[in-house]
Amino acid sequence: MSWEYSRRVKYYETDRMGVVHHSNYLRIIEDARMEWLRDNFMSYSELEKMGVIIPTASASGKFVSYLRYDDEFKVIIRLVQFKGVRMEFEYEIINSVNGQLCYTGESTHFFAVDGNYKPYLSFRSKFPELYQKMCLLHEKDTKI
Amino acid sequence: MSWEYSRRVKYYETDRMGVVHHSNYLRIIEDARMEWLRDNFMSYSELEKMGVIIPTASASGKFVSYLRYDDEFKVIIRLVQFKGVRMEFEYEIINSVNGQLCYTGESTHFFAVDGNYKPYLSFRSKFPELYQKMCLLHEKDTKI
Amino acid sequence: MSWEYSRRVKYYETDRMGVVHHSNYLRIIEDARMEWLRDNFMSYSELEKMGVIIPTASASGKFVSYLRYDDEFKVIIRLVQFKGVRMEFEYEIINSVNGQLCYTGESTHFFAVDGNYKPYLSFRSKFPELYQKMCLLHEKDTKI
Amino acid sequence: MSWEYSRRVKYYETDRMGVVHHSNYLRIIEDARMEWLRDNFMSYSELEKMGVIIPTASASGKFVSYLRYDDEFKVIIRLVQFKGVRMEFEYEIINSVNGQLCYTGESTHFFAVDGNYKPYLSFRSKFPELYQKMCLLHEKDTKI
Repeated sequence: MSWEYSRRVKYYETDRMGVVHHSNYLRIIEDARMEWLRDNFMSYSELEKMGVIIPTASASGKFVSYLRYDDEFKVIIRLVQFKGVRMEFEYEIINSVNGQLCYTGESTHFFAVDGNYKPYLSFRSKFPELYQKMCLLHEKDTKI
Repeated sequence: MSWEYSRRVKYYETDRMGVVHHSNYLRIIEDARMEWLRDNFMSYSELEKMGVIIPTASASGKFVSYLRYDDEFKVIIRLVQFKGVRMEFEYEIINSVNGQLCYTGESTHFFAVDGNYKPYLSFRSKFPELYQKMCLLHEKDTKI
Repeated sequence: MSWEYSRRVKYYETDRMGVVHHSNYLRIIEDARMEWLRDNFMSYSELEKMGVIIPTASASGKFVSYLRYDDEFKVIIRLVQFKGVRMEFEYEIINSVNGQLCYTGESTHFFAVDGNYKPYLSFRSKFPELYQKMCLLHEKDTKI
Repeated sequence: MSWEYSRRVKYYETDRMGVVHHSNYLRIIEDARMEWLRDNFMSYSELEKMGVIIPTASASGKFVSYLRYDDEFKVIIRLVQFKGVRMEFEYEIINSVNGQLCYTGESTHFFAVDGNYKPYLSFRSKFPELYQKMCLLHEKDTKI
């Protein structure tokens, strides 16, 4: 079972077309990713206190159908790659009421030293338990 | 003559009512205030490099009439108070095409030490020239 | 007992000062007001379906202390005025962990016909039950 | 010569990492695309008045290096595909001061009937001159 995040569309997330502005999907999947981290790994703010951050290296997505104000949606998120310090997530956003697929996307990230924004090459040796946890999460999300 | 800032409404500043979301007026007057600073005083990023920041203490405004996507508008800004480290700005946002008043507001701010967010009590003695400049700007904006 | 809304600060609500950008308080109190409406009155999207909208006429607030990424906060909201079609809400935002007051503000609004943005003068006669409900909510929020 | 859009990073576009939040690159390239339309084709608001809109179908990008508050940048934009009603743009965002590449991305869009959000299949026959103009812009942006 994949992990899910759900909430409703906020008023200020819509634009004059009456639907969620496409830039806000990157914010919505960030919300989902942050809650996934909290639930499965540790909260991002705890990670920051340990001097580790997770910049976004790339993001792409297809805007398949529209979400409107107050629509309830869920984000299905899976950690589809984890190698050393790099990771890739896949997302699907689904309208919770009618089951319609609204967005599919992926984003890549890496563990970095706070204030540096470069891959944290010694992440595995410095944080062996966190590294191990990420491997298990990746395994869980990619097994058939 | 008051100082003016002008630009057009961006698409992502509108909401599903088809008009600028009211929260964005605080962003628009920040844009205007930052450009006022650059033109009359020094750029905010230069100020930050000197270890000085200008937090917002309060803001209020009336949403008089609506701005829509691509509307050209101007922000009239005046420094109506400056005492020690505290300052107050007044704003009017006007539709550049039809002259309609869209927003009136004010905001209060203070000079602070970066990383502290408390009024920079020694601002006048540490930066006598900047202090003097603010006094002159205030005088210019409040003389009848 | 006043009605409360609570959630955590999202990453994209912060700015380079490391705290919630002051414009986002208007979005946070909108979130609170929308949930207050849903819980006490009816959802804003249902109201829109009836052809009624609630534009914001004015808003003001004091930024008392800072909220940072992931801070849990609550918004206390009270309907302090309701006359005909006009209403005023008061807000306090409080850090849920340390009890610190972060923001106090108020906003005024009015019922309007969708697509018109002018006060819905016949609101009371067209929607007598909704009018009555608002009167009761106002009474509840202002009695000592 | 490719068409360019330039401006500075706004304060509220940064996040607590001190850099432009990655979601805002989709807003920045929208700004660029809208100005490209105005300069080369017609303003998006004029297009809307003719009953035509241009939804975003997909977007992807790489966050190569960071932009900070007040950094001046330029967006280079090219119409790399245009077939019937569908179009694809490519973007590069470059720091204007040091020439560093900050972002590369692409987005796909289509002409649609306002209120419908489906490809405007008769766009070519209904707006032959606009169709022809897009073909020329595409030719100009893709010739070696």
